[in-house]
Amino acid sequence: MQRSRVAGLTLYDYWFSGNGWRVRTLFRCLGRPFFIRWVDITRGEQHEAWFRRMNPVGQVPVVEDESGTFWTESNSILETFAEGTPLLPGGHLRHQVRAWLNFEQTWVDGIISRARFRRTFPDVVPTHPMLFDIWNEEGQRALQTLDAHLASREFMVSDRFTIADIGLYAYVHVAGEGGFELSRYPGIGRWLQRVSREQGVLPFGTDPEAEGARSERPD
Amino acid sequence: MQRSRVAGLTLYDYWFSGNGWRVRTLFRCLGRPFFIRWVDITRGEQHEAWFRRMNPVGQVPVVEDESGTFWTESNSILETFAEGTPLLPGGHLRHQVRAWLNFEQTWVDGIISRARFRRTFPDVVPTHPMLFDIWNEEGQRALQTLDAHLASREFMVSDRFTIADIGLYAYVHVAGEGGFELSRYPGIGRWLQRVSREQGVLPFGTDPEAEGARSERPD
Repeated sequence: MQRSRVAGLTLYDYWFSGNGWRVRTLFRCLGRPFFIRWVDITRGEQHEAWFRRMNPVGQVPVVEDESGTFWTESNSILETFAEGTPLLPGGHLRHQVRAWLNFEQTWVDGIISRARFRRTFPDVVPTHPMLFDIWNEEGQRALQTLDAHLASREFMVSDRFTIADIGLYAYVHVAGEGGFELSRYPGIGRWLQRVSREQGVLPFGTDPEAEGARSERPD
Repeated sequence: MQRSRVAGLTLYDYWFSGNGWRVRTLFRCLGRPFFIRWVDITRGEQHEAWFRRMNPVGQVPVVEDESGTFWTESNSILETFAEGTPLLPGGHLRHQVRAWLNFEQTWVDGIISRARFRRTFPDVVPTHPMLFDIWNEEGQRALQTLDAHLASREFMVSDRFTIADIGLYAYVHVAGEGGFELSRYPGIGRWLQRVSREQGVLPFGTDPEAEGARSERPD
């Protein structure tokens, strides 16, 4: 239990979760200190009563702030906690950020992330091979859309790093674990390089919080 | 072509789309006049070059404002256009609205809406029966979550009608067309009644814009 009563945000998270990764990354980018309480979603801990009281939907991540208020849904957390910072522009740019996060929710979180989780933990949710074929096709279409968008752009929105990049990078940079060949998408490849150079952005397996959790994980 | 050059918003939409329905409903609730240009997604019109220039993701709805700026992703459109109105509260309530719209995106739009579309238009995208079984199970879980949430509440967030209600009502009130038995969910049932009484909320098949489109539809 790494939870603490001293000041700071508490993040209920699982090391493998890209939804958690994007919140950890946001907090690192913003320089906001946080504590982590790991929730083992491969054992269904997110469905236990104590967790459901924080988030009735039964999903990590959840952020608990200093006043004991809970904040759920990672893309919503990005927008709420980035408010007033350079990571979230205003006006039509904000709308574009929001629209790409919605795209992420349906086609990346809903497809690529599921393929990745089910391939990595085949015993947690048994999956028919046909479903992987469908996800593969739909995920490729999502990656093609992103690749075309990024062919002539530095970042997802405007010419600057925003939470749209953080939100999409989460599952796109590990799409290979879902069976997707990222080498087919040069626009995405250049963007991944660019985003990886932003301060606070650490690929899965190199962020110290998740590394700690992995080394503690029971075999 | 109902598009017009006079002042007002132009909505690129398809009559059957719940994503379009929620934008039409928002505009009716706000009293904002709009014109509709129907896009026949059963014939792939959303993939044509003229449409992709407005929305590279190739999805309805798209809103074009008076200055020629395009706004995509229906849940993003809800938040952007409801800004500063009673339909979108601030602070933690706003976060809850956002979080439920994210939930909608994954579990209602991503599951229930797909089951409904594929059942209604079986020839547009051929679907393996197993996929309907999976969607049925996942969609039921989403409806259970909503039902439990609504058991003791008047509306999705706080005690007032917000864009979270508009966003969720869109596909939940026609979930029967996706094969879901809404009668199993009394909390949802009471909420559907309540939302249906809000000014501007007209169930599918009774909103004049979509009615017009249906009667014009070629057989």
